[in-house]
Amino acid sequence: MNSNSLSRRHFLQASGTAAIWAPSSVMAYTSAEMQAFYASGEMSVNVSKWELDTPALCVDLDLLEANLDKMAQTMSSNGIASRPHAKTHKTPIIAQMQMDRGSVGICTAKVSEAEAMFQNGIDRILNTTGNVTPTKINRAMDLRALCPGFIQATDAPENARLLSAAAVAKGLVADVVVDVDPGIRRTGIPFGQPALQLAQLVDQLPGLRLMGMLCYDAAAQHVVGFETRKAQTLERMTAATDTFELMQASGLNTEIFSGGGTGTYNIDHGTRGMTDVQVGSYVFMDAQYIGIGGETDREVYSDFHTSLTIMATVLNAQHAGRATSDAGAKACTINQPWPIIKGESGMHYRSGSDEFGTIIYEDDPSRNYKVGDKLELIVSHCDPVVNLYDQMYAIRNDRVEAVWPISARGMSA
Amino acid sequence: MNSNSLSRRHFLQASGTAAIWAPSSVMAYTSAEMQAFYASGEMSVNVSKWELDTPALCVDLDLLEANLDKMAQTMSSNGIASRPHAKTHKTPIIAQMQMDRGSVGICTAKVSEAEAMFQNGIDRILNTTGNVTPTKINRAMDLRALCPGFIQATDAPENARLLSAAAVAKGLVADVVVDVDPGIRRTGIPFGQPALQLAQLVDQLPGLRLMGMLCYDAAAQHVVGFETRKAQTLERMTAATDTFELMQASGLNTEIFSGGGTGTYNIDHGTRGMTDVQVGSYVFMDAQYIGIGGETDREVYSDFHTSLTIMATVLNAQHAGRATSDAGAKACTINQPWPIIKGESGMHYRSGSDEFGTIIYEDDPSRNYKVGDKLELIVSHCDPVVNLYDQMYAIRNDRVEAVWPISARGMSA
Repeated sequence: MNSNSLSRRHFLQASGTAAIWAPSSVMAYTSAEMQAFYASGEMSVNVSKWELDTPALCVDLDLLEANLDKMAQTMSSNGIASRPHAKTHKTPIIAQMQMDRGSVGICTAKVSEAEAMFQNGIDRILNTTGNVTPTKINRAMDLRALCPGFIQATDAPENARLLSAAAVAKGLVADVVVDVDPGIRRTGIPFGQPALQLAQLVDQLPGLRLMGMLCYDAAAQHVVGFETRKAQTLERMTAATDTFELMQASGLNTEIFSGGGTGTYNIDHGTRGMTDVQVGSYVFMDAQYIGIGGETDREVYSDFHTSLTIMATVLNAQHAGRATSDAGAKACTINQPWPIIKGESGMHYRSGSDEFGTIIYEDDPSRNYKVGDKLELIVSHCDPVVNLYDQMYAIRNDRVEAVWPISARGMSA
Repeated sequence: MNSNSLSRRHFLQASGTAAIWAPSSVMAYTSAEMQAFYASGEMSVNVSKWELDTPALCVDLDLLEANLDKMAQTMSSNGIASRPHAKTHKTPIIAQMQMDRGSVGICTAKVSEAEAMFQNGIDRILNTTGNVTPTKINRAMDLRALCPGFIQATDAPENARLLSAAAVAKGLVADVVVDVDPGIRRTGIPFGQPALQLAQLVDQLPGLRLMGMLCYDAAAQHVVGFETRKAQTLERMTAATDTFELMQASGLNTEIFSGGGTGTYNIDHGTRGMTDVQVGSYVFMDAQYIGIGGETDREVYSDFHTSLTIMATVLNAQHAGRATSDAGAKACTINQPWPIIKGESGMHYRSGSDEFGTIIYEDDPSRNYKVGDKLELIVSHCDPVVNLYDQMYAIRNDRVEAVWPISARGMSA
């Protein structure tokens, strides 16, 4: 699926299958050892991804950079900005790579995620989820006090009043966008007058400064078929544009109209008024996105490369037609489509068991892994998979180039 | 479902609904604040679980202790030991509570989990998953060097030879059990002669000492209907008993025959020769286990209490028939049955969205949560849910009594 994919068989042939198995001839490194190497600047140890202790989360740097570059170029060509969503990667180093390529800021889903990003050098953050409790409102405004580039979403008048009161109490005027529901009834205030009135309230409240609105159509992102997806999102977002123009006509500040995502990144500039796209999954891609089809490749969504993989090890190969690996639900989640074994065909992977993965051979009974063999899995759904790991290995040409902390892992509060 | 469950409505009535919402009258605490309180011994702050920043993982101590006591009493009555599986809780404090009630040791699923348990004071550990790579074999034997009560499972002759070589190189004789496949083809060596021959090999290898066998019938644990479950597991485990008796007849050391789990805890003593039961989920219970039915209560598996819950907060209540919370897949997993809202009926919860939960009202359109309301969720499947959190709050009478580190969280390698 990817141009530089190296099949496991090819690797085994190149290195000699026996070498995987014998303790004397194969190096292998635990996460603690890899962290120590990286912290000491000793990445000259030149560790292959095939030598990592498993399960191990890896990102291929050539593929990641190609994804980042393609998104930056597409946004530039289409005359729209990107404000990538960090809920996908939870990794400040990747957020910085996005900023370095011209993104106007990043998005976060939770205030704890925003805090982790700011503590690691990212200072332009739009928190897309409303904070409704006193604790979270205070945390958001404390972050705003430290980070002038912090913007908070709100979707209800009562919430806007509480935000303003907290900002005033801290001597702040906090930037706010109105979260408008695209019709999926999850978060956001309805289109039209309710949204306009909330924007007017925000504009008038002493502790808040209106920056515009966001409208994230989550339901559009995974619609299968490019034309169907395009028609659906553009039709649905007309109401968002109408609302945005209501705000403009009322003389409100509308410098931000944020929305869209990886599934609609090359469609969203068609939504009149939209200023920036909240793309997330494009950095990694995953099995869920592959199947939706793209503009040029209608079958496979191949606009971006599958850069995020899980290295796993075969634990048991005693039973015909299958093998057992060490990467189950706690390493892969149970999201479907299931993980894809990179560079293989004629076999399937299941991660439904908490501790173990199952490799099922389908059309070639002669195929079989041996105990100790390594395999590489394209992740099922990148966001919750990343949330299982404290670090990811940054790989170039199959070698570990860096160990990146996933600083916002577990930041669900 | 639980005797001391306090319904949300009752709580709201008792405390005044408005109090949930107004910043001036409600205390609320972040995980960092709670950790600091606990570390400083200041739990006299007397924090209610309803005041925690959410999502927050909570264990009810009265219910947990009742579960631990019931298991200890049942095992004692049935003349069989328990060796609880720590993959469920990943929490050394709970492992210690199990040891304090007479468990002969704990089980772990990964060597990293075993390391985390040992580093936190647990010194009788059976690692039930084979370690097949040089890295993991060395880690296991390094742990054995520090922890004489460490026992490692093996399921193949080549693996036993590598384990022995690693033990000899470290000047050890390591305790080993043979992992026997109960017929689920996941890990383990087949019943009968293959298992016997592996046991004989372990017995002869210079670095290993045979302790017996384990045979964990994962597929039996969630069979619906007590009699069906009982018949199936006892029938299937006859072959395990036969294998165990082959080992005995061959003069091998068979002091351990470990197997069973929460679904069969009161059945496993009927398997001849079994010495201890690897019960895990009984400490917490979950929505998946509730439905399998028990010996006395055929509809609901009410032998143990649902002690593990997630506190969540309503973020949006603008749409008829539903509300949105802050606990989605990253806080609850997407395991099904979905989480159950404790103390409520006529509504359902969905955690399929990464960042958000959905509350769906069914039979009473007048029911509706307000923004800022708290709800308490019985977890869907306890093991992977625990693996999402760095800590759990230990609650008694709805007050936070302690903050417990989940030391083995993310230890999938």
